[in-house]
Amino acid sequence: MREVAVVGVGMTPVGEHWNVGFRDLAGDAVRAALTESNVAGIDALVIGNALGGTISGQNHVAPLIADYVGMRGIEAVHVEGADASGGLAFRYGCLMIASGAADTVMVLGVEKVTDVVGSGRGKALATMLDSEYEAAHGATPVGVAALLMRRYLHEYKVNLTGFANFSVNAHANGGKNPLAMYKNQIKAERFAAAPVVAEPINLFDVAPDADGAAAVILTTAERAADLTANPIRVLASAVGTDALAVHERTDPLFLTAVKQSADRAFRQANLTPDEISFAEIHDAATILSTLALEASGFAGRGEGWKLAAEGAIMPAGTLPISTFGGLKSRGNPIGRKNCDW
Amino acid sequence: MREVAVVGVGMTPVGEHWNVGFRDLAGDAVRAALTESNVAGIDALVIGNALGGTISGQNHVAPLIADYVGMRGIEAVHVEGADASGGLAFRYGCLMIASGAADTVMVLGVEKVTDVVGSGRGKALATMLDSEYEAAHGATPVGVAALLMRRYLHEYKVNLTGFANFSVNAHANGGKNPLAMYKNQIKAERFAAAPVVAEPINLFDVAPDADGAAAVILTTAERAADLTANPIRVLASAVGTDALAVHERTDPLFLTAVKQSADRAFRQANLTPDEISFAEIHDAATILSTLALEASGFAGRGEGWKLAAEGAIMPAGTLPISTFGGLKSRGNPIGRKNCDW
Repeated sequence: MREVAVVGVGMTPVGEHWNVGFRDLAGDAVRAALTESNVAGIDALVIGNALGGTISGQNHVAPLIADYVGMRGIEAVHVEGADASGGLAFRYGCLMIASGAADTVMVLGVEKVTDVVGSGRGKALATMLDSEYEAAHGATPVGVAALLMRRYLHEYKVNLTGFANFSVNAHANGGKNPLAMYKNQIKAERFAAAPVVAEPINLFDVAPDADGAAAVILTTAERAADLTANPIRVLASAVGTDALAVHERTDPLFLTAVKQSADRAFRQANLTPDEISFAEIHDAATILSTLALEASGFAGRGEGWKLAAEGAIMPAGTLPISTFGGLKSRGNPIGRKNCDW
Repeated sequence: MREVAVVGVGMTPVGEHWNVGFRDLAGDAVRAALTESNVAGIDALVIGNALGGTISGQNHVAPLIADYVGMRGIEAVHVEGADASGGLAFRYGCLMIASGAADTVMVLGVEKVTDVVGSGRGKALATMLDSEYEAAHGATPVGVAALLMRRYLHEYKVNLTGFANFSVNAHANGGKNPLAMYKNQIKAERFAAAPVVAEPINLFDVAPDADGAAAVILTTAERAADLTANPIRVLASAVGTDALAVHERTDPLFLTAVKQSADRAFRQANLTPDEISFAEIHDAATILSTLALEASGFAGRGEGWKLAAEGAIMPAGTLPISTFGGLKSRGNPIGRKNCDW
């Protein structure tokens, strides 16, 4: 296996981009990444996108985008895994480099979700759940997260206020990110009083759906050293899965898929949670941040929220998270995520 | 790069499976492949599917299917590229083995399209085209193929009857395939008189939409030798792209993406078209077979149809194609294809 490194990054602002289309967002991110890097050419394009077919009526995005960004003829592929689409695309790009199938790969995450509003949006987002056993009964992703949070509050005797700092931290960091969707600050004392979205989850608790694109350029660690003074080496990439429907999981309050992937990544990198300086997790709702921190080995069962309550997740803490504003403040373009840096 | 081999194959019958769901079809193919092979375990699952989100309201199929087939926790990913979804999944599986990321990979193609009928089906299939410049104007895949065929007939002064043997051959072969959708035979003299679907394409010219699943198990060539007396070595796998919208292509009658991928594969395998004993191509309509044979290097420009007219594509010919019945007789489960053997 050849070692992999990141040599270029490009991102669009995140928000409600009603004035531009899916392909335009993709193009902006690709051009920004190319401008930042010094690569002479790209061998392959891997696209992470969750809802192009469902919301924009556009499947088959790989050749479309490859052509639109001036790479007609290139190897191009679309990978999908709901919120993990961007991460899965990054993983594929790494394997292309590692295997020798490509020397330089563009990984692109792109999502355009705000063109559909109201119940259409909810229905589209629900295609990421189990269609027959969750979506068919009206469940949506935030609805399922609300069930998990309700159970967590009951199980561990925690109050909603214990989660406030996840959002306070996200907005504090997002205020410094020029690409963030919401740059306003959130006060901890106002958190629990925000309007309810899906009880107990409220408006200050859950990330806004958004449009955006992000691209990274990967190459071999060897080539990277010639291209930039500061390549980012990829020490590990791993994927885990669990039952899709939450009610099928042995223990709904433990994200087994996160544990699987984290364990695999730590093993590949020969590192432990204690050695990590900062982490970016799937923070679309504060309960998901909590559960991800627990399953990744950064906190014990029932104690993930304490990393927020005690300030450990803040920039000066022991494990900063949501450093770019998180999905809460920066905005949540479903399948673009994990291409963010 | 490690060499890759196929050590197990499983397939469902192809047809209108109104009595079973998406996940059931997947399960049947996976179990059949496991039964045929002697592998001890599977490291990863790669799924090719084109229209699960659009037709079944089911995105995020990788963890869903992994769990349903008894592989909860495994690395699993969904790749999409319209009709090429199955082939792209196969390619990803090969790269996982080649890179060392996995020793044994299950590649699954699965599609359930017949639950939607009438204009809903056409709209779903049209998501595989350019949504803004083709689908928005009412184009469908068969409609676009009809435009290509009209132009081809004009350009090369050929009659529709010249294409008859593509379908005659497909049905002759499909009649011997117990999994085929239509086992009836087609007579050449009846071909041009069949009811019109999208003029000049008629009912005997174009493949029927269908449901089905197919799975193959990949491992290293080294391990394969211990598992089976007859492993199938993968000598090459490659991907090419072109402008998605046909009107954007420099030369609509030449499938540049097919040429790109064929050239790359021939180069990897160090082979020429003359050395190929039989070929399986994307034969969803006879014009597509014709153009694919030309772009792959098996026939000159304007001469692909002659391989059918002169019988070269038949079992006793120099380049048999559609040996399993092709998409025309076996049936066309969009994203399952290229997992077929």
